[in-house]
Amino acid sequence: MLECLMPELRQNPITKEWVIIATERAQRPEDFAPIKIEETAPAINHCPFCEGNEQITPHEILAYRTYGTQADTPGWWIRIIPNKFPALVPQGNIQRVKQEEFFRFMDGVGEHEVIIESPKHNVSIATMEQKQVEEIFLAYRERYITLSQDPRFEMVMIFKNHGAAAGTSVKHPHSQVIATPITPLHLRHLIDETLRFFDDNGECVFCVAIQKEKMFKERIVFETDNFLAFVPFAASSPFETMVLPKKHDSSFQSTPPERTRELAFAMKTVLAKMHKSLKDPDYNFVIRSAPCHEKDLEYYHWHIQIFPRVSAVAGFELGSGIYINTVIPENAAKFLCEA
Amino acid sequence: MLECLMPELRQNPITKEWVIIATERAQRPEDFAPIKIEETAPAINHCPFCEGNEQITPHEILAYRTYGTQADTPGWWIRIIPNKFPALVPQGNIQRVKQEEFFRFMDGVGEHEVIIESPKHNVSIATMEQKQVEEIFLAYRERYITLSQDPRFEMVMIFKNHGAAAGTSVKHPHSQVIATPITPLHLRHLIDETLRFFDDNGECVFCVAIQKEKMFKERIVFETDNFLAFVPFAASSPFETMVLPKKHDSSFQSTPPERTRELAFAMKTVLAKMHKSLKDPDYNFVIRSAPCHEKDLEYYHWHIQIFPRVSAVAGFELGSGIYINTVIPENAAKFLCEA
Repeated sequence: MLECLMPELRQNPITKEWVIIATERAQRPEDFAPIKIEETAPAINHCPFCEGNEQITPHEILAYRTYGTQADTPGWWIRIIPNKFPALVPQGNIQRVKQEEFFRFMDGVGEHEVIIESPKHNVSIATMEQKQVEEIFLAYRERYITLSQDPRFEMVMIFKNHGAAAGTSVKHPHSQVIATPITPLHLRHLIDETLRFFDDNGECVFCVAIQKEKMFKERIVFETDNFLAFVPFAASSPFETMVLPKKHDSSFQSTPPERTRELAFAMKTVLAKMHKSLKDPDYNFVIRSAPCHEKDLEYYHWHIQIFPRVSAVAGFELGSGIYINTVIPENAAKFLCEA
Repeated sequence: MLECLMPELRQNPITKEWVIIATERAQRPEDFAPIKIEETAPAINHCPFCEGNEQITPHEILAYRTYGTQADTPGWWIRIIPNKFPALVPQGNIQRVKQEEFFRFMDGVGEHEVIIESPKHNVSIATMEQKQVEEIFLAYRERYITLSQDPRFEMVMIFKNHGAAAGTSVKHPHSQVIATPITPLHLRHLIDETLRFFDDNGECVFCVAIQKEKMFKERIVFETDNFLAFVPFAASSPFETMVLPKKHDSSFQSTPPERTRELAFAMKTVLAKMHKSLKDPDYNFVIRSAPCHEKDLEYYHWHIQIFPRVSAVAGFELGSGIYINTVIPENAAKFLCEA
C-alpha cells in the first residue's frame, strides 16, 4: 500500500463497500479549501435559537435551565424543541398501505427535534467549553432513551449539520434527532454484514477493527480510556473519522453518564483538531446505534461517524456507490493527529 | 396519498429503500433556487477541452472527426481522451491482497475516460443540436461495448457532472466513463432486490414499474416509442427522473444505434425541460447497466437516473440512508412535463 503513486481500491472491512483512494489526484491535506456555500442564515437578533427569542419557536420539550426559570423563557443552557418544519410528525398511522399491489407507503410518523446546543449564537462544539459539550451529549443520551422506548419507532438517529455545505440553514449551533417508524435498508445491510462477520469469526467486526487499528497506530486520531477515534482504512471521503467505544455495546443509549462526558471530550477534541487544521470546515456527524428494539446485539457496535464536507459527491458516486477519496487515510490521520 | 399536508414515507418498489416526502417543508417547484458553488473553471482560451487545445490533453482514444484530419488536431465533433487525473488506471494487478487477514485492497486497475461532448465551450446537452446529442450517445455506446469486453472489468459506468454543485471542475461540456474491476455492493444490492422480485412475481420489477407508471400517468415527464421518462414514486430528491427503455434489456450496450438516437432525443428533451423550468440547474446523470459479464438478465433492466442538484445531502441522509424529498413526485413531474 501507499508507497506507489498508483490509485488503490480498498474494501471497508465492516460494510464490504469498496472505495477508490486516488492518489494521482491527491491534494496535500493542507491544500484543502473547504467548500463554502453562501449562507442565507438570518441575522443574529432574528435567530429563533438565540436566548431571548424563545417565543418564536415551538414549545420546548426539555431544557437544561436554572432552577426556577420558566419554560420558553431565558435561563437555559441546552434547549430541545420540535422542528418547526418536521420531516416526520408524531401523529398518524404506522400501517403500511399498498396501492395497486406495487407502491407501498405510510404516514410520515415519527419525531423530529432540534437540540439547541448553546444560548450563544457564534460558538461551535470545537470552540465552546468542555462542560457545555458534555451537556449536549447528555441531552443526546436523554432524548435517545426517551424516544427509543416508543414502540412505534424502529430507529432513533442523532445528527449534526455544521455549515451550509453540510445542509444546515440555521447558523446557531444545533443538532437534530429524528425517530423513524422503519429500519432503513442502509442500516439493515450494515447489520447483516456485521452478523455475517460474527457468524464466520465469532467476534464483533468493530471490536476487531479496534484491535487492528491499535496494532497499526497509523490511522489513530485520538484516544481516551474508553473511546478510539480513527480514520477508517477505507474512508469514503477525506478526513472522515470514526469514534467508537472500546468496550462492546450495540446501543448508544446504554452509555452511562460519566462515560457520555468522556465521549463529549473525545468528540470535542477531534472536532477541534478539524477546526484548526481544516479551517472550520463544514461537517456532519451521526450517531449510529442499533435499531431501538434490537438490544444487546453481540455483532453490532454503536459508533459515531464525522464527515468533513471538503469534497463533492458527483455522478460516479451516485451511480456506483463507490466513493473516490483523494486523501490517503494514513495521511489524513497524521494531519489531524498533529493539529 | 397527497391530499393531506402530513409527511409521507414511500418505499421505492425497486430498491426497497424508504424515502420521506416532507410536504410540510415543501417548496413550490417554481421556488427552487439551484445550489450554485463559485466556479473555478479556467478561462475559455485555456480550456483543455476546446478545439485548438488538443495538444494540452493526453492523446485521444477515439474521436468522431472529419475524414482526413489527424488525431489530436482540430476537425472533431466528439473526442474521447484519458482522464488526466484518473481515479483508476489501466496498469496493475487485479488480485486482492489481504493485510492481517482483515484489510483487503488491490491496485486501482480500471479505465477513466473523458468524453468531450462538443468542440464548443458554452453549450450543454439541453441547448445543443439534436444531431450532436445523438453523436454523444453513440460515443457512450461505443466506449461501453469496448470497455465491457475487457475481462478485467466488472462494471462500466457512464456519468455526467454538470456544474460545480454536481462535482465538476471543468465547464466545457463533457461526460466520463469509469470501468472498475469490482462490482460495487450498491449495484449488487440492487440486482439482488430485482432478482427477489423476479423470483416472487415472475416479472422484471422495472417492466412492472413501466406498466404502473403508464396506468397512473401522473409521474410521466416524457415518452417516446421506446423510452419512458418519469419521476419515481419514491424519488430520493426533487425532480429526480428515471429514463427507461420500454423493452426489457439488462445491458445498455445492446441498444442498437437507431434506438440510441431515440434515447438521445428523450434525454435531450428531459434535460431541456429541466434547463427551462429549473433555470439551468447543476445535475448528474448516470447510466446503470448490469455488470459487464452478466448478460441477458431477465430480472434487471438498464436505466438512466438524472439527479438535479437542487437540495443538499445532510447528516440524516448520510447516517440513515433515508432521503428527505421536499417536492411531491407527482408535482415535480407535472412541473417538468409542462415546461
